[in-house]
Amino acid sequence: MITKTLQELAEYLGGTVHGDPNVRINGLAPLEGATPEKITFLANAKYAAKVEETKAGAVLMAPGGEPYGHNVIELPNPYLGFAKLLTLFYTRPHPNLGVMPEAIIGINVTMGEDINIYPGAVIGNNVSIGNKVVIYPGAVIYDDVSIGEETVIHANAVVRERCQIGKRCKLQPGSVIGSDGFGYAPDGQSYYPIPQIGIVVLEDDVEIGANATVDRAALEVTLIKRGTKLDNLVQVAHNCQIGEDCMIVSQVGIAGSSRIGNHVTLAGQVGVVGHVSIGDNVIVGAQSGVPGSLPGNEYYSGSPAMPHKQWLRVMGVMPRLPDMRKKISELEKKLNLLEARLAKE
Amino acid sequence: MITKTLQELAEYLGGTVHGDPNVRINGLAPLEGATPEKITFLANAKYAAKVEETKAGAVLMAPGGEPYGHNVIELPNPYLGFAKLLTLFYTRPHPNLGVMPEAIIGINVTMGEDINIYPGAVIGNNVSIGNKVVIYPGAVIYDDVSIGEETVIHANAVVRERCQIGKRCKLQPGSVIGSDGFGYAPDGQSYYPIPQIGIVVLEDDVEIGANATVDRAALEVTLIKRGTKLDNLVQVAHNCQIGEDCMIVSQVGIAGSSRIGNHVTLAGQVGVVGHVSIGDNVIVGAQSGVPGSLPGNEYYSGSPAMPHKQWLRVMGVMPRLPDMRKKISELEKKLNLLEARLAKE
Amino acid sequence: MITKTLQELAEYLGGTVHGDPNVRINGLAPLEGATPEKITFLANAKYAAKVEETKAGAVLMAPGGEPYGHNVIELPNPYLGFAKLLTLFYTRPHPNLGVMPEAIIGINVTMGEDINIYPGAVIGNNVSIGNKVVIYPGAVIYDDVSIGEETVIHANAVVRERCQIGKRCKLQPGSVIGSDGFGYAPDGQSYYPIPQIGIVVLEDDVEIGANATVDRAALEVTLIKRGTKLDNLVQVAHNCQIGEDCMIVSQVGIAGSSRIGNHVTLAGQVGVVGHVSIGDNVIVGAQSGVPGSLPGNEYYSGSPAMPHKQWLRVMGVMPRLPDMRKKISELEKKLNLLEARLAKE
Repeated sequence: MITKTLQELAEYLGGTVHGDPNVRINGLAPLEGATPEKITFLANAKYAAKVEETKAGAVLMAPGGEPYGHNVIELPNPYLGFAKLLTLFYTRPHPNLGVMPEAIIGINVTMGEDINIYPGAVIGNNVSIGNKVVIYPGAVIYDDVSIGEETVIHANAVVRERCQIGKRCKLQPGSVIGSDGFGYAPDGQSYYPIPQIGIVVLEDDVEIGANATVDRAALEVTLIKRGTKLDNLVQVAHNCQIGEDCMIVSQVGIAGSSRIGNHVTLAGQVGVVGHVSIGDNVIVGAQSGVPGSLPGNEYYSGSPAMPHKQWLRVMGVMPRLPDMRKKISELEKKLNLLEARLAKE
Repeated sequence: MITKTLQELAEYLGGTVHGDPNVRINGLAPLEGATPEKITFLANAKYAAKVEETKAGAVLMAPGGEPYGHNVIELPNPYLGFAKLLTLFYTRPHPNLGVMPEAIIGINVTMGEDINIYPGAVIGNNVSIGNKVVIYPGAVIYDDVSIGEETVIHANAVVRERCQIGKRCKLQPGSVIGSDGFGYAPDGQSYYPIPQIGIVVLEDDVEIGANATVDRAALEVTLIKRGTKLDNLVQVAHNCQIGEDCMIVSQVGIAGSSRIGNHVTLAGQVGVVGHVSIGDNVIVGAQSGVPGSLPGNEYYSGSPAMPHKQWLRVMGVMPRLPDMRKKISELEKKLNLLEARLAKE
Repeated sequence: MITKTLQELAEYLGGTVHGDPNVRINGLAPLEGATPEKITFLANAKYAAKVEETKAGAVLMAPGGEPYGHNVIELPNPYLGFAKLLTLFYTRPHPNLGVMPEAIIGINVTMGEDINIYPGAVIGNNVSIGNKVVIYPGAVIYDDVSIGEETVIHANAVVRERCQIGKRCKLQPGSVIGSDGFGYAPDGQSYYPIPQIGIVVLEDDVEIGANATVDRAALEVTLIKRGTKLDNLVQVAHNCQIGEDCMIVSQVGIAGSSRIGNHVTLAGQVGVVGHVSIGDNVIVGAQSGVPGSLPGNEYYSGSPAMPHKQWLRVMGVMPRLPDMRKKISELEKKLNLLEARLAKE
């Protein structure tokens, strides 16, 4: 168990201590249920009153929060601080076991230092593996792949030939990088498979969810840029380009050759058609369908997608459609009666 | 080939024989095409007339059915009886081959009796494996996992560290239990990965479909309770709790921290947002989107979901929207004409 | 690097040379950026003007195209020609390495000639493997499976017991063939698993996307006919039958016992309910839901699906629903005023 003084934690987080800098902390706990050797955090103003009652030895909070007499580390983003302390207290570096027996290694594989390649992992020929890379059992790396340092590839993930994986990437179990794009030339009746001779490039700090799939490009590159995270069961088709720091939530599908800007969020089960562009900072609500390009800096919802506020109004009307239809019918009858009456006059 | 008398089958199923208890049966067949050594079943009253023509040696049917002179096992739930006879006649116990050569076993693994661990399976350290467990090739069990008795883990399924799998569970090929939850703390521009230090618990009799994914909790437990079945490609996000005896059909996605009651059915491709509750005995129709909590004992459909009957009425109006719009326009013109005419008078 | 004369390429493609048949070509390139030793192609009339500027040594084009003085191979389907030349110039036959060390092979396995079974692949008992089959690391073939010649099974794909894979099929990484169908008999409270004792048959030239799943039938056969292609993360439930030359795009789900005709396209994220039929040559638009049978030779969209043109009109009205509601309310007020006025007269 790690123990740190509050001062040490404040320095680690870039925050400021108010109260006793020497109090000793050995872990994190929620506001309720924390004990004096734990630090807790206030990330949502809704819970500010709970700070009064907490038994924690210290509280992470934003400037302007009420400490109720507690020791405090003040920092602008307490939720980020919480995440960093979770890393500090509860995660351990990988053990540097090297290439373990029963891992299967091809020829001409270059390996960095402090790696872990587990039994049952299969590495092809001409693969380059950076320092501190971890490859779990059953992961399969085809020939001519490069894997940047500190990347973790979980069990039964697959990286196909020639794809390039950046630094500090994480591939969850069962994810597939570089499967053939879904490209066929119709010959009238049947479909002739178009060789998919491109690759996938994942830049640094990209994370890929369990059983998510990223297809290799037909000719060039399917590209996922720095910092972007894909959740489980996401599909990225061939030739797509996804910008930096995007959040692509579970079961999203992006069809071929589409371009997603930077800092875009696609919520769960969204579908994006092929050959469109989505601008920077766009948010697309869950289950939406994107049938064309979307300008940046806007929140869209619906299938087909429209601005979110408009969609909310449209959805508000939906349950009333049967009443509206009835009302139209009533109005028509009334109007016909009026017309008939006036015609007689 | 197994052969049983009708009396033996009736005792196995808890039903009652009408007719010859000594007729010998060696398998199941549909009403049409059955032969005298087979038993058939009537589970849907729609097909009652077909009983007359069947050549089967006996018929499973509910009380009150017309036997048309056939030998009958009468029991309240003939479809359940059919399923149990399928098990009796057509499934075989696993062969108890033990730990086969080329299975990879970590240190401090405890194993029950009559297990089957196939070549190419990988078991981590400190894993506990109950009696009669079957683990197929390529399945990867990380450290500190426990697996209850009679559980079957198919090829290339993955169970990550510390997760707990109950008794008589079944994990289809490629399913992933305990992948990291999709949790990130925004730091303004980028996303800092929040360590996911919780686990997944599958209680007894839980089944997980092929390539389905269940994420580990951020801090505590993602819980799937006794008897619940997940179909292929389902996504369960971190910190969810799913009750007992639920049917979660293919490609459903449930976002983080949501709670599903007991005996809930989510039909195919349903999406449930995070942090909501769905009450007991709810049914949600295919492709629906659940944007908030749903009270129990109700059938919902639509995206956003509404009571199913209301949704049917709304959907009935949808194709008429263009006509409604035209009609409103016509009514407006007529009304304006009337107003103009009256203004002149 | 392969080099061919234009005449050789024309013969390979079944086209006709206009210009110099002896020009030597060593690869393909897009219209822009091509060099004289490359051949380029015009598949979309939109880009016809770019032919004038290209530096390519020759151009594939359809009859009637303007060659702008270039050497040309004229053929009816230049896009198909492009695909075939990609195969010619950029793909290589598998190296015929046989059964590699560390592949795990069961008993009574029959193998054709010129196969490649990679390290870490696991083949069960009584498996039949045709000529030129390639099985990548981590792929698991259960007992009693047959695999037709020239089929390629990528890493960590799984084929369960007794399933039959045709010739020239391709299974992308992580795909699962023959998982148990989602069949349970309710016993009032819980669900009793119905043994799924059928199989899956993939006919010749079927391709299955990464992490796609095809469930085995309860009793008989889940069938995917010749030439059909499934994209990544597609779900095909038990007892389905899919016709020839269909395109089933990513994340489509087809529920149990449904029948899809020949030459059907289901676009991304479409859902099809169980026990329905879709006729030949149907196209279903992205994210649509098919709640019942659909006659052939039609393009459908929407959830629930309707003819595409009708759906376009309905979707055109959707954003105007709030205005329509307001308008109805206004008309009602006006009409009430008129009525009141006339009542006084």
